[in-house]
Parts: sequence; structure tokens; C-alpha cells
Amino acid sequence: MDVLIPLDRAAEQPLRDQVYTGVRAAILDGRLPPGARLASMRELARQLGVARFTVDDAYDRLASEGYTEGRRGSGTYVGDLQALPIPPQPASHPANRAERPARDWHVKLSAWGKRLPTVSPDLEPEPRLTFTFDTGTPALDAFPTAIWQRLQARETRKQEHAHFDYGASPGLPAFRGAIADYLARSRGVRCTPEQIVVTSGTRQSIDLLARILVDPGDPVLMEDPWYPATRLTLSAAGAQVRPIPVDGDGLCVDALPEHGTPAKMVCVTPSHQYPTGGVLSLPRRLALLQWAERTGTLIVEDDYDSELRYGARPVPALAALGDAGPAGRNVAYVGTFSKVLFPALRLGYVVLPPDLVGPFAMAKNLTDRHAPTLLQATVAAFMAEGHFERHLARTRRLYAGRQAALLDALASEMPDIADRHPYATSAGLHFLVRFAVECSEEELIRRAAAVGIGLDGASSCFVTPPSKPHILLGYAALPEEQIREGIRRLADLLGAGG
Amino acid sequence: MDVLIPLDRAAEQPLRDQVYTGVRAAILDGRLPPGARLASMRELARQLGVARFTVDDAYDRLASEGYTEGRRGSGTYVGDLQALPIPPQPASHPANRAERPARDWHVKLSAWGKRLPTVSPDLEPEPRLTFTFDTGTPALDAFPTAIWQRLQARETRKQEHAHFDYGASPGLPAFRGAIADYLARSRGVRCTPEQIVVTSGTRQSIDLLARILVDPGDPVLMEDPWYPATRLTLSAAGAQVRPIPVDGDGLCVDALPEHGTPAKMVCVTPSHQYPTGGVLSLPRRLALLQWAERTGTLIVEDDYDSELRYGARPVPALAALGDAGPAGRNVAYVGTFSKVLFPALRLGYVVLPPDLVGPFAMAKNLTDRHAPTLLQATVAAFMAEGHFERHLARTRRLYAGRQAALLDALASEMPDIADRHPYATSAGLHFLVRFAVECSEEELIRRAAAVGIGLDGASSCFVTPPSKPHILLGYAALPEEQIREGIRRLADLLGAGG
Repeated sequence: MDVLIPLDRAAEQPLRDQVYTGVRAAILDGRLPPGARLASMRELARQLGVARFTVDDAYDRLASEGYTEGRRGSGTYVGDLQALPIPPQPASHPANRAERPARDWHVKLSAWGKRLPTVSPDLEPEPRLTFTFDTGTPALDAFPTAIWQRLQARETRKQEHAHFDYGASPGLPAFRGAIADYLARSRGVRCTPEQIVVTSGTRQSIDLLARILVDPGDPVLMEDPWYPATRLTLSAAGAQVRPIPVDGDGLCVDALPEHGTPAKMVCVTPSHQYPTGGVLSLPRRLALLQWAERTGTLIVEDDYDSELRYGARPVPALAALGDAGPAGRNVAYVGTFSKVLFPALRLGYVVLPPDLVGPFAMAKNLTDRHAPTLLQATVAAFMAEGHFERHLARTRRLYAGRQAALLDALASEMPDIADRHPYATSAGLHFLVRFAVECSEEELIRRAAAVGIGLDGASSCFVTPPSKPHILLGYAALPEEQIREGIRRLADLLGAGG
Repeated sequence: MDVLIPLDRAAEQPLRDQVYTGVRAAILDGRLPPGARLASMRELARQLGVARFTVDDAYDRLASEGYTEGRRGSGTYVGDLQALPIPPQPASHPANRAERPARDWHVKLSAWGKRLPTVSPDLEPEPRLTFTFDTGTPALDAFPTAIWQRLQARETRKQEHAHFDYGASPGLPAFRGAIADYLARSRGVRCTPEQIVVTSGTRQSIDLLARILVDPGDPVLMEDPWYPATRLTLSAAGAQVRPIPVDGDGLCVDALPEHGTPAKMVCVTPSHQYPTGGVLSLPRRLALLQWAERTGTLIVEDDYDSELRYGARPVPALAALGDAGPAGRNVAYVGTFSKVLFPALRLGYVVLPPDLVGPFAMAKNLTDRHAPTLLQATVAAFMAEGHFERHLARTRRLYAGRQAALLDALASEMPDIADRHPYATSAGLHFLVRFAVECSEEELIRRAAAVGIGLDGASSCFVTPPSKPHILLGYAALPEEQIREGIRRLADLLGAGG
């Protein structure tokens, strides 16, 4: 064998891997054709100035992967590449973990790829601490797993062809029907099942709306403060995101622009403004619908947490009010099962104005075809048999208690430190709380984590982050006793009271 | 009440709904403020020139939805809108189905939205016929539902917080580990679990790659003929799709451009060229890797059906050969569970060059956060316990028999009419078959459907559709006897043989 095997003794890659790679490259590029005899291990070790076992290792691997064959007593030969077997090396083989120099792919990213954030707060879940005040997580311990399990098993056992084969991109008809009935009953939203497209959750709903409607540079209006994930998705789409202030009645409709380039959409969270927790008042809703009609803007109504009100009656959805006039055609109603069933389910939906159903369904079709059918069938059965509304009623009672426990604990443990946001209402899974402390939000979160308390910062929700730390205190996923104990420890940490 | 209720007697909307809508609009926009007295039913009926029961109906509905209140003996009054209850009308109420004039949203669609196809062949599943020769559907009757059901139940019952709460965007660690081990064992692809991102299937894998890499106008190379869904996704991204011919050894690497604007990616189906069924030869694979390295192009290796070979040994994946040199950094390896488990599962994955892992994972995070966790956990258990490879071995035997049955039936029933494509190999779930008949592909499909035979046309796979009808004959989802009977009937229909 007279081929050059380049070795780099300064490289992190072990020499045995360099020998393997070098010989394999020579075989694959034809310098060592099928049938050619390889240098003996002893020869090659001498030639390269490496230990004999280094070459042994490399030859063993080449033989075990079928690149070479040994003929008894006559050395090692290149094998028949057309019948090359599949190398059986496990993924954990050290060669797979060798560092390779990074190529600068970044310069080749698309404009969209370049607009992606380089860090996302929720790419990987945070480690769970003893007292994690999760913002968007419902009471997973209260989820009726046994009922779910029974329905899931039943839908699986049915072995209906339609449950296993490719399905309809807008969603399983039974599921869309169950959603339409539920929305009519509970939110006053009247739509046909055909106006509903099932998605993988609110994030996909917003992304697909942005994709079919927003070109780079287009203005899009958002509440300030806002839901950061929606903001990131719209910014990646290239939208010029324009913040509109929020007050105790929700979005300040008077501050919406009447002139200039019309916005493609205005994104609102009217049932439970994220993050402040306020409710968009009925007069504001009517004014917003009229403004949208006047300017031809699509209202994206993210109605998350609308199911979770513990006191006052819910205000009708914008999509429910809209059909009193042609304005209903300007509302895309976005719903999710993450907060009312469980987040890892990844199911949500959009109720679309009739003219947008076609493009949105086609966008879903081309981007991921459809949502998993057995999950859709299970939720459809869960809704049709009344478990969904029973679960909602149960969790509403549970959350009302947990919310009260949190408010009590804050009032008794740190009355001078923790202020609930003035717009907050008795609803949802979290409160926005201002902490009158001297440290930064980041430092507060770090110090709390050190004593087992998990906190979510709210600074990414604001155009201009407030001077004092703001924390999204979620109470839904913690039992009352843990809420009280967590706040007690937090108060100790911050030297509150006593 | 002195408000104008506009009625259009020529409209399709029933008059009672027009009266309801008109009064409701007057209430909502303040012309009829809370507490105002409505005209009596008799008065309003006279005023509008409609029957009394028309107004009765409308008033009943307004009262039942809380827009109005009756005071005993003193008429009907506008209610307290702040406490407006939620109307309990079901979605199937006729008013919800009334036709409304379409607004032209199309002009407001984004450039991407405008590039979406207006019809997609798979937006809704085709109705199943007695003999449906499905192209992409595996043997659902051979799927081990009982085992699946047991693992799914076990993963659900574990009630692990991580199975129900938000998860990692690149996928469940146990699932990514199982995929990495499987790829190393069966396809020679060596990667770390960290290089794998779980997606909702190949369609999303291609879409996210296009999103992070392709700007409108960028050249992208594809096989001709090609997989139509990938073609549509890339065209929607605005790519200039350039076809590269295919022969019996797969993609004609010599035909790849060496100069001009470098392509962002070249998309290939090397294990089972879609739709011809050929295999990219080893020398072509090596040449393709070298070309990609030279031109800095990303190879998108859609390795579908690589698991389903019934004769010859599989050729190593491009991603497996690549790591013999730096070219491995140019391959994104795309895999799917649709063809080996079941399509409605909606799970696939991409093995990414290290530098693309970050942008791709971030794209997944912003577009739909992550794949459903319980499904990922169930497949991970199915793989870790050996069920996956046992199922593959079983279906390979089954498909070899079904494929042979189809070939026999074609040879004996219509030897002069049906020609299997010359590049086809003994692999996959379908054959491409040319029909020497006088009618068009569309007519052939329509005539077959009329006698209960479902056929998939292949004309959308070709830049220049061939003159004779080409059909993708899937054999995986039909028992052998049904394959024989279906082909017999098709032969009768076409007047083949005797």
C-alpha cells in the first residue's frame, strides 16, 4: 500500500481514528481499489511512526465494517464495495464525538434563518426545582390520566384505517366538530367545523398566520407588554412589530394607527392579557372590531386562559361579537389545549375567516401535513363525552384555591416587597408580580434558584424593561402547601418582613 | 325603537336571521343602549313588513343569549352588556351556515402565501376503494397494535412530569438516543444524539431546511422525476427548482452544475429514488459527496424506504460515507416513521451537520416548539425493546411477498400493457408502472375508480409528463389475494390479454 495517510499529532482525534479515516478515504476514493492488498499492520505502524496497536485498532474496525477482508495467511485486502455491509458501530463510538473544525454555515442561512433568535428561553426545559412557579403549566397532577388512558386505548384498538393512515390536513372531522360545539357553548364563537384548522399549538397557529400574511417589513401590531414567543415568531417573519400600550381595560384601542401603511395583523390576548392578566373590556372589544373593519386589519385573538376564570363571567370573544357585522370576517381565533389539558400534547386550533381557510389549510399541508390522528381522536372523545368540561370545572376550583393561597402568602410574607400587577384579574395560571428589591431580575432568579425556587422573569415581555424585577408567578402546578412554603422561603431570602 | 333594520329579501340569509343580526348590531354599537326598550314584536313585524313569527324567532334568540331582558308585562329591554352571558347556540345553527359575500383576502396574502399551491392532492385523504393501491401507506393490518398499546399505556401511566409538560424542542433525549443507535446499526450513519432534531415528518424536515437556508430566487437542485410534496414545499419557499436527470444508477451526478450561482441544496432519494425506485450507486454517491464539497452545497438525503429492501444489501447512506472526509458536514439526513410504523403518527427526524443543529432546532422551537412527547416516548420504548427491528423484519417478508404477487399479476394479466419502470429495484412500497393504453392518466384513474380500484397518478413527478399514463402502484397495504384480484379487474377494464 503506497497511499498517504495524513496524521496530525496535535489534533484531538485519537491517532487510531486518524489511521482508520485515512485508509477508509483511500478505499472510498479509489486509491485503494477492491482487491488491493493493504500494508501489513507492522509495516504501516513503522511507516507512520505509531504503535502497532494503533494500526491494529484501525484495521479491526475496517474489517468489521466490511471495507477489508483478511485472507488466511496472506494479509488484508480491500473488499467488494458494491456489497459493502453496514458498519455496526454504535453512535457512542469515540470517533463520532471527535471535534471537527466548524464551517461557517451562518453566512449561508436564509434571511429568515438569520432573523432567528440565537438563544431561546424555552429551547430546552428548565430543570425543575422543589418550588417551581411555572408560568404556563397547568396542574398535571390533577389530569385524569386514567380516563385519558382509557379513551386513548379505545381509539387505538378501534384500528380504524383512518386513525393510522394519512389524514386531512385541517384536522380530524370529529375533532373539528367537537371544537366547534365547545366554542359555541362556552365562548359564543359560532363557526362551522370547516372554518377550524387543527395545529400543533398556538406557536404554530401564529407562525402559519404570519407565513400566509406577513412579508418582511410589514407592520404588525402587538400589545406592550407582550407574549415573547409570539413576538419572536413575528420578528423572525420580518414583521415590523409596533407596540401598542395596554391599560387596565386591555389594549388601548385609541392608540391604534388610523393612517399610514395598514398593519397586516393586530395580536391580542383579550381574555387574560399576557403578561399583565387584564381583560379587554367590552367597549374596547367593539371599538377594536370597528377599527379592524375600517383599516382592513386581521385581529389575531389569542384567547388562551379564557376557560380559566374564577370570578366574573367571561366577556364574549371578539370572534363571537364580530358576527354581528362583517367585522367577524377580520378575526382569527386562536385556541390551545396546552393550558387546559397538558402542554406536551401539542394541539391547538385556529378559527379562520372563511377566505383564509384555504391558504391556512394549504400552509398546514405543506409544512407538516396534519396533526397526529390518535391524539386528535382521543381529545375528540374526551370532549364529546363531557370529560373536558368536567376537567375544566375541577381545575377552575383547584386554581381558585391555589391563586388565593399565593395572594395570601404574598400579603402575609412580603407585603412591602411583592406587588401584584394592578391590571391582574382573577383568572389564568399566573400573576405578574413586581418585586421592590435592589437586585436585578436576573440576580433575583439566580438567588431564588440556589434555594430551590424556580422563577420566570418577565423582562422579555416589555419594550422597555421596568426598573424593578418583574416575575411571572405561576400557581397552577403547585399544591397550596408548596405555594405557601415557597413564598415563605423566598421572603426569607429577600429579608422581607420580620 | 327607532333604529333601521336593513332587510335584503333577495339574500340567502333567512329573514329571521337578518332581523336578529340587525337588532344585535344596534345593541352592540350603542344605537340601542342598555335599558332601552325594544319595539314590540307586533310593531316591528308591521314596520318591517314581515310575519310576526319572524320577529318572534329573532327576539327569542336575543333573549336567550342575554342581549335583551323581558320585564313581565312591560316589553323587551336591552340587557346589561358588561355581564353578557355566552350564547348557548350550537355550531350547527342555520345562521352559522348562512352564506356571506367573500372578501378578497388573496390580495393581502404574503409572497409565500401567494406561492402556495391552490390545490394539493393530499389536503384531504382520498376515499378508500375496494382495491386501493396506496403509494405511501404501509401494511397497517400488520402493525403490532397490542404491543404499541401496551407501551403507550405504560408511558402514560408513568405520569412523569416530563411526559406532560413542555419538552425540549430538538426532541425527547431517550428518543434521539434510540434513533442515533438505530442509524449507526442499520444505516452506518454515525452521529451524536445532539445532531438529531425530531420533526413531524419529512414534510416538516424539508420545510424547516428550506426556511433556514433558502431565500426566494435561490437555486435548489432536485431529481427529475421527483417527489411532488418536496417540490411544492421548495417552490413555496421561492426556490428556483432545477431538475437533474435520473438514470438506472440514480441522480446523474455529471449533470450537476459546476459553475454559476451555487445551489443551496440538492435533494435526493438515494435508497429508493422517488418515483422510479432506483438506487443511487456507490460510485455516484462518492461523486455526489465530492461535488457537494467542491461547490459548498448541502445534500438533503431523504432516505425513505431504506429499511425496506427485499434482495440486495443496502448501499451505505450518503451521511455514512461522508464522514470519511469533511464532506459529511454537507449532508442533512432525513428519516421518517410514516412508512415503517404508520403515517398518522407524524414523526420524523433530521441528522444535521453540527453547524446547522442550532438554527434548525431554533426553527423547530419557533414554529411549533416540539413533537408530542408521549408519542416520542412510545416510539423510543418500541425501538429500545427491539420491537421496531422485529416489525421491520416481519414487514420486509410481507412486502417481498406482496411485491412478487403484484409482479406476477402484472406479468400474467396484462403483459402487453403494464411495464414496470426499468430502474425499479426490489425495495420500497410501490412500483412505477407505465400503461400502454390510449387514454390519458386522468381518464385511466377515473375509469379504475369507477370499478373500485384506487390508483395514484405519477404525472406530477415529471418536469415533462410522459405521453403514456404512469401509475404509482403501491402493494404494501393490500393482501396478496386482493392485489391479484385488483389487477385482474384492472386488466378486464383495459381489455388486456385474452
